[in-house]
Amino acid sequence: MEEIQEKIQFQLTDELIEQVEVLVEDKNDKKLKALLNEFHHADIADILDELDPEDSVYVIKLLDSETTSEILIELDEDIREKVLKNLSNKEIAEEIEELDTDDAADMIAELPEDRQAEVISQIEDVDHREEIQELLAYPEDTAGGLMAKELVKVYETWTVAGCLRRIRGQAKDVTRVHSVYVVNKKEQLIGRLSLKDLITSRSDQKIADIAKENVDWVHVNDNVEDVAKIMAKYDLEAIPVVNDNQVLLGRITIDDIVDVIREEADKDYQLAAGISRGVEADDSVFKLTIARLPWLLIGMFGGLGAATIIEQFNVNMGDFIILLSFVPLIQATAGNVGVQSSAIVVQGIANGTIDGKIFKRLFKEFLIGLVNGIAIALIAILITHFIFGTTYMVSFTISIALVTVIVMAAIIGTFIPIFLDKRGIDPAVATGPFITTSNDVFGILTYFLIAKLILGI
Amino acid sequence: MEEIQEKIQFQLTDELIEQVEVLVEDKNDKKLKALLNEFHHADIADILDELDPEDSVYVIKLLDSETTSEILIELDEDIREKVLKNLSNKEIAEEIEELDTDDAADMIAELPEDRQAEVISQIEDVDHREEIQELLAYPEDTAGGLMAKELVKVYETWTVAGCLRRIRGQAKDVTRVHSVYVVNKKEQLIGRLSLKDLITSRSDQKIADIAKENVDWVHVNDNVEDVAKIMAKYDLEAIPVVNDNQVLLGRITIDDIVDVIREEADKDYQLAAGISRGVEADDSVFKLTIARLPWLLIGMFGGLGAATIIEQFNVNMGDFIILLSFVPLIQATAGNVGVQSSAIVVQGIANGTIDGKIFKRLFKEFLIGLVNGIAIALIAILITHFIFGTTYMVSFTISIALVTVIVMAAIIGTFIPIFLDKRGIDPAVATGPFITTSNDVFGILTYFLIAKLILGI
Repeated sequence: MEEIQEKIQFQLTDELIEQVEVLVEDKNDKKLKALLNEFHHADIADILDELDPEDSVYVIKLLDSETTSEILIELDEDIREKVLKNLSNKEIAEEIEELDTDDAADMIAELPEDRQAEVISQIEDVDHREEIQELLAYPEDTAGGLMAKELVKVYETWTVAGCLRRIRGQAKDVTRVHSVYVVNKKEQLIGRLSLKDLITSRSDQKIADIAKENVDWVHVNDNVEDVAKIMAKYDLEAIPVVNDNQVLLGRITIDDIVDVIREEADKDYQLAAGISRGVEADDSVFKLTIARLPWLLIGMFGGLGAATIIEQFNVNMGDFIILLSFVPLIQATAGNVGVQSSAIVVQGIANGTIDGKIFKRLFKEFLIGLVNGIAIALIAILITHFIFGTTYMVSFTISIALVTVIVMAAIIGTFIPIFLDKRGIDPAVATGPFITTSNDVFGILTYFLIAKLILGI
Repeated sequence: MEEIQEKIQFQLTDELIEQVEVLVEDKNDKKLKALLNEFHHADIADILDELDPEDSVYVIKLLDSETTSEILIELDEDIREKVLKNLSNKEIAEEIEELDTDDAADMIAELPEDRQAEVISQIEDVDHREEIQELLAYPEDTAGGLMAKELVKVYETWTVAGCLRRIRGQAKDVTRVHSVYVVNKKEQLIGRLSLKDLITSRSDQKIADIAKENVDWVHVNDNVEDVAKIMAKYDLEAIPVVNDNQVLLGRITIDDIVDVIREEADKDYQLAAGISRGVEADDSVFKLTIARLPWLLIGMFGGLGAATIIEQFNVNMGDFIILLSFVPLIQATAGNVGVQSSAIVVQGIANGTIDGKIFKRLFKEFLIGLVNGIAIALIAILITHFIFGTTYMVSFTISIALVTVIVMAAIIGTFIPIFLDKRGIDPAVATGPFITTSNDVFGILTYFLIAKLILGI
C-alpha cells in the first residue's frame, strides 16, 4: 500500500498476441496464467478476440470461472459464439453461476434454442436460475430485457441500524450499490435512499422518515431507448424497474445504458451510410456484403430511373446536348442537400429538439435551402458561362434548376424522416441511400423539366 | 410515504408552454412557482428553451438559486447565453455558488472574457472560487476540463470508524459518492474503497488493509474521448484524475461521459452527412446555412469536375450517346459504395476493431467490392439490354464499368479514413461529401475510360 502505482495502460500489441499464442501452443499453463492474471478481464477479452477460437477455448478452460465468466461477456459476439460451441452445457452453466442475472440471461439468449433449456437446468443455484428464467421472458429491447435482478431493497418499517445490518448481507451479491430501494409490505416501490443518506443518518431513524419519495422508475415494458433518454436527461446512474402494480422487479445501471447509447449511435450512423444489420469491420466478407448489397440495389434502381428520364429528353436535345454534362452536378447537389436536411431532422427527433411543428420546420428548411441554393446558383452561373462557355440561357437554366433542386431536396429530406417517425418507423432509415436515391431521381427530372420550360428542348 | 407514486412522465406540450407564458405575462408569481416546483430542473429547462428569452429570465429570477443554477446548466447553449446576458455579474456568481465545480467552470467559460474575471471575483466561497479557477486552466477536451473537484478522500492511516465519521462531513458536498479515494500523506492516489466496503467492514480495521490498490485513473491531460473509452470498456462509474506526481486532483463521473459519447456520436453523424460545427435542428437559419454551405460547395466542384470529363468525351460520342444516360447510375453507385466502406472503417477505428493491418483491410474491401460489384453488374447487364434495348457491347461496357467503379470506390473509401487517422485527422471527415465527391469524379472518369477501351468512343 506504500507504493505509488505505475501507469499500466493496456496496449493490444502483435507481440503480446504472439506471446499468448506461443504459450498456448507450448501448453505452458503456469506462465500463461501468470501473464493473463495481470490484465483486466476486458483486456483479456481483447486478446482472445484476436486468437484462433481453439486457442481462446484453451485459455477459457485454463482460467478460473470467476474471471472467465467476465471475459466471456466482454468477447466479440462472433467469437463468444465459437467459444461457447466448444464448452459443454455443464461448463457454460458454471460460468453462468458467476454472472449477474442480466449478463447471464444475455449469454443464454445467444445459445441455440436446444441448448438453452439444457444449460438452464444445470444451474445449481435455484434462485439464480429462476431469476434468469424470468429475465429471459422479457423482449431484448425493453427495460425488462436490460435489467438485472441484483439490487438492495429495504422495507419502510426498518430503522437505519437494522437496515445497515441487513444490507450488509444483500450488498455482497450486488456489484455496485447506487441506491437502496425502499418498498412496502406488498413489495411495491415507494422510495429510495442513497448509501450516503444511510451513513449520514442517526442509527435509530426510521427508513420511512429519511427515504426520498421522489424516485424515478421505468415500467418493465418501456423501450430501452426511452430508458436511455430518461437516464441521460436526469443524470441517473441506476433506475428501478416496476410492473403494472408498482412491484419492484429489478434495476438498470448506467453502464448498460452506455452500451445502448453507443449501439444506437452506431446503428444510426450505419443506416445513414447505407449499411444494415449492425455489422462491424471485423465481420466476414459474406456478412458485410449482405449488409451492403440491398442499399446498392436501391441506388442502382434510382440510377436506372434517372437513365429513363434522360432517355426521354435525349431525343430532342439537339443544340442543348451540353445540358447532359451537368447532370452529375444536379445529382450530387440534390443528394448532398437531402442527406444534410434529413440528418439534422433525424438527430433533432432523437434528441427531442424537434417538436410537433412540422410546417414551421419545413418553412425553415425552405429558407435554408433558398439561401444555400442562391449562393450555389450564383457561383454556378459564373463558372458555367465563363469556364464552360455555355450561353447565358443555358447557364441560367442550370442555375434555376440548382436553386429549385436544392429547395426541393431540403423539403423532401425534412419531410420523409418526420413522416416515418409519425408512422412509428425509425427515421434514421431515411438518411441513407433511400433519400439520396429519391433526390437523385427527382433532381434530374426537375432539371430537365426546367430546361424544357426555359429552353424548349 | 404510504401512497404508491402515480406515474408522472413529463410531457412538453404546447398547452404547458402557453400556460407558463400566460402566468409570466400576468406576473402571477405564486401560481408560476407552484406550477414549476412540481417539475425536475431538467424539465423546467425544456420549458424555458421554448420561451422568449425575457420570459426565461423572469422565471430564473423568480425561482430559488438552488434550482435555477441546475436549470441554467440544462438549458440549450444559445438560450443560456441570452439568459446570462440579462443577469448581473453578482446574480451569475450566486448561481455559480450553488453548482459543482465542473458545471461552474463550464458556465463561466461560456461567458464573454471581460465578464469572466468579474463574475469569479464575486464568488464568496474562497475554496470554491480557487477550485473553479484551477479547472478553467485546463483545455476543454482534456480530463482536467471535464473533472470536478468534489470527491471523497481518506488517508491510508485512518480506521474505518474514523473514516466514516470524517466522510460524513465531506460527503455532504458531493452529490454522488461512487468511491472513496485513498491517498497518502503527499496526497498521492494509492487506492480506492467503495462505500459498500466501508459499511461491510469492521469499524476498527485500517483503511490501508481494506482499500483496493488496483485503482484505475487517468492523467489530467488525457483526451476526453480516451477517458470515455476507458470508462466504457471497464464499466466505471467514476474515475479519479491525477497529475504527473500521481497527486489526486479531481474525478470524472459517468454522467459527464454519457454526454461526451452522445456529442461525439452526433458530431460523427453530422460529418458523415456533410454538416459541420455541431449544429442542432433548432439553431438559426444563418447558423445552419453556414454549417452546410461548405460541403455543398465541395459537391458542386465535384459536379463541375464531372462536367469537364463528360465534355471531353462528348465530342466523339456519336452512336454511343446512350452512355450518357447511365452516368447517374455510375455516380450513385460509386458514391454509395464509398460511403459504406468509409463508414465501416471510421466506426472500426472509433471502436478499436480495426488494427494496423492496412493491406489486409484493403484486400477485404476489394473482395466485398468484387462480390457486390458482380451482383450489381449482372443485374445491370440484363436490365439495360432487355429494358433499355442497348446493344450487348454497351450493356457489357456499363457492367464492367460498374464492377470496376465499385471495387475502386470501396478501396478509396477504406484508404482515405485510415490515411487520415494515421495523420492524426478525425477520419469521420472522410465519410461525408468529401468521399462521395471524389468517388463521383473518379467513377465517371473510369466509366468513360472503359467505354473508350471497349467501344472506342
